[in-house]
Amino acid sequence: MRTGIATVCLSGTLSEKMDACARAGFDGIEIFEQDLVTSALSPGDVRRRAADLGLTLDLYQPFRDFDGVDDDLLAANLRRAAAKFDLMGRLGIDTILVCSNVATATRGEDDVLAAQLSQLARLAGDHGVKVAYEALAWGKYVSDFEHAHRLVEAVDHPNLGTCLDSFHILSREWDTAPIEKMEASKIFFVQVADAPKLSLDVLSWSRHYRVFPGEGQFELAKFMGHLARTGYDGPVSLEIFNDVFRQSDVARTAVDAMRSLVWLQEQGAAWLAGEGETHRYPLQLDTLPRVPEPTGFNFAEVKAADTSALETLLGQLGFSSRGRHRTKAVQLWTMGQARVVINETAPTLSGPAISAVGFDVENPLLASSRAQQLKAPVVPRKTQADEEVFQGISAPDSTEIFLCQGTPDGTAAWTAEFGQAPAGRSIKGASAVIDHVNLAQPWQHFDEAVLFYSSALALAPQPFAEVPSPTGLVRSQIMDTADRGVRLVLNLAPLIQQGRSKTYQEHIAFAVDDLVSIARAAKKRGLQFLGIPANYYEDLAARFDLEPGFLDTLRDLNLLYDRDAQGEFLHFYTATVGSVFLEMVERRGGYDGYGAPNAPVRHAVQYDLRQTTA
Amino acid sequence: MRTGIATVCLSGTLSEKMDACARAGFDGIEIFEQDLVTSALSPGDVRRRAADLGLTLDLYQPFRDFDGVDDDLLAANLRRAAAKFDLMGRLGIDTILVCSNVATATRGEDDVLAAQLSQLARLAGDHGVKVAYEALAWGKYVSDFEHAHRLVEAVDHPNLGTCLDSFHILSREWDTAPIEKMEASKIFFVQVADAPKLSLDVLSWSRHYRVFPGEGQFELAKFMGHLARTGYDGPVSLEIFNDVFRQSDVARTAVDAMRSLVWLQEQGAAWLAGEGETHRYPLQLDTLPRVPEPTGFNFAEVKAADTSALETLLGQLGFSSRGRHRTKAVQLWTMGQARVVINETAPTLSGPAISAVGFDVENPLLASSRAQQLKAPVVPRKTQADEEVFQGISAPDSTEIFLCQGTPDGTAAWTAEFGQAPAGRSIKGASAVIDHVNLAQPWQHFDEAVLFYSSALALAPQPFAEVPSPTGLVRSQIMDTADRGVRLVLNLAPLIQQGRSKTYQEHIAFAVDDLVSIARAAKKRGLQFLGIPANYYEDLAARFDLEPGFLDTLRDLNLLYDRDAQGEFLHFYTATVGSVFLEMVERRGGYDGYGAPNAPVRHAVQYDLRQTTA
Repeated sequence: MRTGIATVCLSGTLSEKMDACARAGFDGIEIFEQDLVTSALSPGDVRRRAADLGLTLDLYQPFRDFDGVDDDLLAANLRRAAAKFDLMGRLGIDTILVCSNVATATRGEDDVLAAQLSQLARLAGDHGVKVAYEALAWGKYVSDFEHAHRLVEAVDHPNLGTCLDSFHILSREWDTAPIEKMEASKIFFVQVADAPKLSLDVLSWSRHYRVFPGEGQFELAKFMGHLARTGYDGPVSLEIFNDVFRQSDVARTAVDAMRSLVWLQEQGAAWLAGEGETHRYPLQLDTLPRVPEPTGFNFAEVKAADTSALETLLGQLGFSSRGRHRTKAVQLWTMGQARVVINETAPTLSGPAISAVGFDVENPLLASSRAQQLKAPVVPRKTQADEEVFQGISAPDSTEIFLCQGTPDGTAAWTAEFGQAPAGRSIKGASAVIDHVNLAQPWQHFDEAVLFYSSALALAPQPFAEVPSPTGLVRSQIMDTADRGVRLVLNLAPLIQQGRSKTYQEHIAFAVDDLVSIARAAKKRGLQFLGIPANYYEDLAARFDLEPGFLDTLRDLNLLYDRDAQGEFLHFYTATVGSVFLEMVERRGGYDGYGAPNAPVRHAVQYDLRQTTA
Repeated sequence: MRTGIATVCLSGTLSEKMDACARAGFDGIEIFEQDLVTSALSPGDVRRRAADLGLTLDLYQPFRDFDGVDDDLLAANLRRAAAKFDLMGRLGIDTILVCSNVATATRGEDDVLAAQLSQLARLAGDHGVKVAYEALAWGKYVSDFEHAHRLVEAVDHPNLGTCLDSFHILSREWDTAPIEKMEASKIFFVQVADAPKLSLDVLSWSRHYRVFPGEGQFELAKFMGHLARTGYDGPVSLEIFNDVFRQSDVARTAVDAMRSLVWLQEQGAAWLAGEGETHRYPLQLDTLPRVPEPTGFNFAEVKAADTSALETLLGQLGFSSRGRHRTKAVQLWTMGQARVVINETAPTLSGPAISAVGFDVENPLLASSRAQQLKAPVVPRKTQADEEVFQGISAPDSTEIFLCQGTPDGTAAWTAEFGQAPAGRSIKGASAVIDHVNLAQPWQHFDEAVLFYSSALALAPQPFAEVPSPTGLVRSQIMDTADRGVRLVLNLAPLIQQGRSKTYQEHIAFAVDDLVSIARAAKKRGLQFLGIPANYYEDLAARFDLEPGFLDTLRDLNLLYDRDAQGEFLHFYTATVGSVFLEMVERRGGYDGYGAPNAPVRHAVQYDLRQTTA
């Protein structure tokens, strides 16, 4: 598939944008008019630079408010078009995007529109350029892609065709099946965008909240399948207006963008496969090796210069020290199948922070190859000849992700590179696993992280929640597997906390069978629990009809509680060391959540502790 | 009027919120349940702390999803209510907010709702507390304040009354006049919020985008007038859910909040006055000295450690140096009635930055007194006995605002404290005035700034615009006077630039009669214009049918051009020194804008210069 991107998606100057697109591997770009108008590069400079970079210039855009106007304005619009067609000649661009009139149209009859578009097509023919006509979702008279295409067919001129834009089609919830009936030669261009489902006016939604494919909620797989069936073989180009992307580092955003087109092709091919079709059509949807979702967490790693506070916490929770690695400066602590690696190579001044997460996958080499083709940066890790080789990639927030060999019994062969678990240390309820890992995301990379984990790791994004905290709402995005063997929680911290790259919202949660026993034992060992206010337990009593003895146990052990139709949830938190804290949870019945009603309590108590220790 | 605020409006812990509210001068507060549940303060502690701070505890809120439920849930809800009524006894709060059911209601018949509310009212009576019932705009069966009030009247119990919330009423565009027919004794509480007009689902709008009165677009003056006529004399309390306020400094937000209630009272009184009523009703709407809007800019001040680059720019533009002040380390530069003060007392390392703006007002002492009652911090300025005393206040972005004595001819007496204008320096077109000043605002204080300038300076906010720049969209808010004697532009820079308190988006613009002559003379003197790309002029030619010689002049002098139905606009920019640049504009005909289509060009060129010099 020929990949493309509109320059408006990215931050920086035209020159910076072109460089970033070429480095990210795009075939071509759309020149957004304002990027040219504000640039010191002449049209000839742009043409030469694109050629040097190996980028095709696929589209000049947009030309606005052409059709449906009165005769005077039509004459002015044709004059304006002639000037732009001339400019395109110097740029070496053969297609211009003309979008349906939103502002100046006064005449909506199809025959008037067709006659005016026909004049434009003839003028374009004289200049040797092609016009791709697109229905904007908020067009005054033309807002539907089928309507736009009927006009194109009515004009029936070789220099007039259709531009399809997934945003304008899917935002209005129009059926994409009719795309298949279009003649491929009349589809001059295709733009793709995704978006979260929002109940916002479609113009604001379009201008601010578009995201790259796979970062929103549109049914793009189906759109691509229908498109492939037409026989279209032109560029599939990203046109994303997004407030965050406009502000983010151009090189990173271009890579994120390219990843979304790799993903999109796979989704399109998968949709066709689901329909029983295996051929690739002229669109040539490239696919990567498919890998099943991970089966569980293999380990979590915390980096610390001074590891003592973390060791104390783990020991008090009931973890066993498995000693140091035989060649690396790392320690292993385990409790059942829950493995925590303490990496002792952190810079001296930084406090403990989550640095890596290992996932159990069926075939680490294949999974790593797939991730790299999805533009995930590789993390080098030194390994001795007889040690397990870890396949590592770097997540958008710079956490290292390791793809490890899963086993049917949840064990990990590499633990043999450490010492053995000391005998007699096992306690009741100690069959622990990592339940979830919660990572704080910088605001610039939140959407990117969602696509990264879904495309490279096959985690599924759930609808996001917003949790109140004393410093603002925390956006919380759960990514998980169907069987909940892996649950990853991405938290977008309030802006005011974003000065630090790591905030206090990061933790590792362990699931155990008998939380009360674990908590009692931890209390005896002197664990510093996160202290839960008495008011919380009074509110709990008002909300749930709890047995008084049970309520006393919760209060006594600083346990939090939640209940829903599926089951019950008990959990507690430790004090924070550096930017990390730990959580222990017990899921009773089919409880599938994270104790969301309790999250504000956790945030408030942690905030209060920071204020008093700052 | 008794002023109040809900703790949910502010950031921080309950204790920090209470302190900030007391310092800002509120009479009372509403305790938001989550703030209590997450607090280490016991109910008794909260009660004592409020008493110590001189704050009344006016409301406990919210109690959700009580009404319209089945019998089992009703029993559970009454149990839950009894627990909260008991808690209120310990807090010393006599009123609880019960909002109409949004989640669990299954029965919407009025007689069922009234019967259930009646049970709640009796239970409240037993505990000596009052229930204020409020219709949420998205309530399942009750979403209209008149409906809620009919239920209250039907129950007819002394412990059940209505809570009015301006957001839930005005977001649905309901007529506020029926408020007047309500019996004051049945209005148990009043919450006020403003909001920008958004086409968003009302729940999201309410949860994220409420702002303090005067910072949005609701017709709150009328709401207050109707309320006053009922005879209500209870608290008028702010309940604002706002993503930014939740993240901002609690003490500042509390002051901003208090300012909005001072403003709101004045607006209410003004609405009543417009209806021919002058008495204050039991609500006792307090008003401040009214002042007319400023008549013009008196001066703009730039602070610089090294003033030479600025002096060069001003000289090249045709400004005359009027020398140093006789006692202060400031210089005066003038061109016609445009006065620029260069303050030489800046810290050595900082580049030139706009530090103060002087406005011509009718009565500086009165205006200053008004601003101070609106909680504007006073700026002290040392003055000798025979010098003009400047009344200064500090704006939210820390720019100093001076309220100066306006004169019919636009002169300023204080200039006599400097030297005289050198003879023979005046040039053609030099009858300049300050046209507008453009100030960059930090994101946390943008809404606050709008209310500050409208309440303290009587500037009117216009609908905001968004301008694309290479680092993101720049939100641009114009505040002006009816005759456009004062035009202030507040720019909200993209987040990525917010590390610096001052960005490159700050400038002073001067209006002249003959821009081309000014530009020619400046060019001769060697002025460094902001260089406008050739592509801009090509696009200009495509958009407007300009006379070729005129287009050449524009290109030759780096002039920008805009035209609309009212007239034409010519302007140019200088290079940036520190964080300041200067603009010269010529308005032809009735052109009333700022050349918005040209703003992206300016941003892009300035960005490019920063990249190459960084």
